[in-house]
Amino acid sequence: MKIILAASAGFCFGVKRATNLAFEAADEYPHICSLGPIIHSPQVVKKLEEKGVKVIGKVEDIDHGAVIIRSHGITAEELDMIHQRDLRIVDATCPFVKKAQDYATMLCNEGYSVVLVGEKDHPEVQGIISYTRGGEVFVVADCKEAERVPNRPKLGLVAQTTQSFKNLQQVAETCLEKSKEVRIFNTICDATSVRQNEARKIAREADLMLVVGGFNSANTTRLAQICQDIQPRTFYVETAEKIQDSWFDGVECVGITAGASTPRWIIDQVVERVAGVSK
Amino acid sequence: MKIILAASAGFCFGVKRATNLAFEAADEYPHICSLGPIIHSPQVVKKLEEKGVKVIGKVEDIDHGAVIIRSHGITAEELDMIHQRDLRIVDATCPFVKKAQDYATMLCNEGYSVVLVGEKDHPEVQGIISYTRGGEVFVVADCKEAERVPNRPKLGLVAQTTQSFKNLQQVAETCLEKSKEVRIFNTICDATSVRQNEARKIAREADLMLVVGGFNSANTTRLAQICQDIQPRTFYVETAEKIQDSWFDGVECVGITAGASTPRWIIDQVVERVAGVSK
Repeated sequence: MKIILAASAGFCFGVKRATNLAFEAADEYPHICSLGPIIHSPQVVKKLEEKGVKVIGKVEDIDHGAVIIRSHGITAEELDMIHQRDLRIVDATCPFVKKAQDYATMLCNEGYSVVLVGEKDHPEVQGIISYTRGGEVFVVADCKEAERVPNRPKLGLVAQTTQSFKNLQQVAETCLEKSKEVRIFNTICDATSVRQNEARKIAREADLMLVVGGFNSANTTRLAQICQDIQPRTFYVETAEKIQDSWFDGVECVGITAGASTPRWIIDQVVERVAGVSK
Repeated sequence: MKIILAASAGFCFGVKRATNLAFEAADEYPHICSLGPIIHSPQVVKKLEEKGVKVIGKVEDIDHGAVIIRSHGITAEELDMIHQRDLRIVDATCPFVKKAQDYATMLCNEGYSVVLVGEKDHPEVQGIISYTRGGEVFVVADCKEAERVPNRPKLGLVAQTTQSFKNLQQVAETCLEKSKEVRIFNTICDATSVRQNEARKIAREADLMLVVGGFNSANTTRLAQICQDIQPRTFYVETAEKIQDSWFDGVECVGITAGASTPRWIIDQVVERVAGVSK
C-alpha cells in the first residue's frame, strides 16, 4: 500500500515557534501558565500541563509568575493588565499576526481609516483592532460588507492572516470606490492555502484520505471537509489509536495530511500505524 | 423641436482654467507663446494667435518672453530647459495632472516602484514619469500589461487622469499579486466619465445627436463614437456653420454634447443654429 504524506502537513511556522517557546518556558519558569490553550491540540496542551503549564482563561486569574501569549495574540487591554500585574511574558504571538497588528497601528497613526478583512469575533481580529487604541477600524468579512464602509480620505487595509487572497483582492477593489487613497498591506500567511491545495491534490490521487488533528481545530476541520468533498473515503482522526485496519480494504494508496496545530509525533505515529496495517 | 443640451458639454475644469490663464497672459506679456497648442480646439488656438500667442513645438525654439504650459503638463526636462533659458512661465498644467505628477514623485521618494496606469506615449504620462527623475516606473495600459510587472516589495499606483476607474481597479487587483504592499492614489478625474454617461443617456432619448468639438480632439472623437453606437443619426461638427437643415427631417428631439476642449461660444452658436432650423 502506497502512502502519500503531505509535505505541508502539521505545524505552520507560527505554531511551531509558539510550541517551542512554550516548552522552553516550561523548563525555565517554575510558575507558568498560558492565556487560553496554546494551540488547538489537546495532546500538546496535555504535555505542557505535565510540564507545569496551566491553561488560564483570564488575566485577572493570574497573580504571579510567567504567562505565555499564544500564537494569535492577545488584546492591548490584556497586555496592559499583564504589565500592571508585573507578570513575566513569554510572547508566542505569531510574527505574521504581529505584523498585521503593527501595520494597523501604523496606518491609524498616519491618519488612515483601517479596513480589516476578517472575522469580527476572532481573537486575532480583536487583538489587531485593540492595538490601534481607538483608531477608526471597520471589520469586513467580504466585499459585500465592504460596501458599507463610508467614504474616507485615506483607507488602509490589513487582513487576518488566515484570509483568502481572493477575498482581500475583492475588498480592495470595493475600497477603491470609497477613497482617493487606498493602501493595502497583504498580511495573509499562505500556509493555510498551501496546505489546502496540497490536500486537494493528494485527495484526487488517493483511495483513502486521513486527516489528522484536534477536533477543536477549525483549520483541521476545514481540511477534512475539503478532502471529503473530493474523496468520500476520508477519515478525520485525532491520534493513531483510532485507526482501524478494516478501513483499508481494497485500498492501494493512502493520503495523509494534518492541520496546523497537529504535532509531528502524532503524524509520525499515524504514518507508522498505516504502514503496519494488516490486510 | 425639443433640444437637450448636456450639462457636462464643453470645457472641463482644467481646460477652462488653462484657457483663462492663456487669455490673461496674452494681455499681460508682449512676447508670449504656448508649448504646443493650448487645447485641441483650432478656434481657441486661432483666437489666442490673434492676441499674439504663438504655438511653438520645442523649448529650443523659444529664446525670450513667456511660455504657457498647457493643461496636460510638460516633462521635467522641458521645465529644466525653460528655467535655464530664463523664460517666464504661465503654468496652466491641470491641477489634477499636477497631483498625479506629485504622487508619483512622492511614491518614488518613499521607495515604491510606481505602476502608472495609462497610455505609454501620451504627453501627460511622459510628464508624470519624468518628474520621478529616474525612479522605477512601469506604464501599463490594462491588467494584462500589469501581469508583466515584476514582484517588488512596495508598489505605488497612479493613473493618467482620463483613465477609466474600472481599469484602475483591475490593475490594482493584479498588482496585489506582485507585492506585499500596494498603495493606490486614484488620480482619475471623473469629468470624462460624467460627460460620456450623460451623452449615453441623451443619445437614448434623442432622434438626432450633435457632438461638437475639434476633429483633433481625442475625447470628442470618443464621445461621437459613443453616441453613434446608440443613435446612428449622430453628427460630429467643429462649428455651427457645418450644420444642414436637411439633417432634421422628421426629428422631434435633438441632443447636443461637446468635448472637453470645445469653448462655450461654439456650443451656444450650435444651439442657436439648431433652434433656428427651418423644416
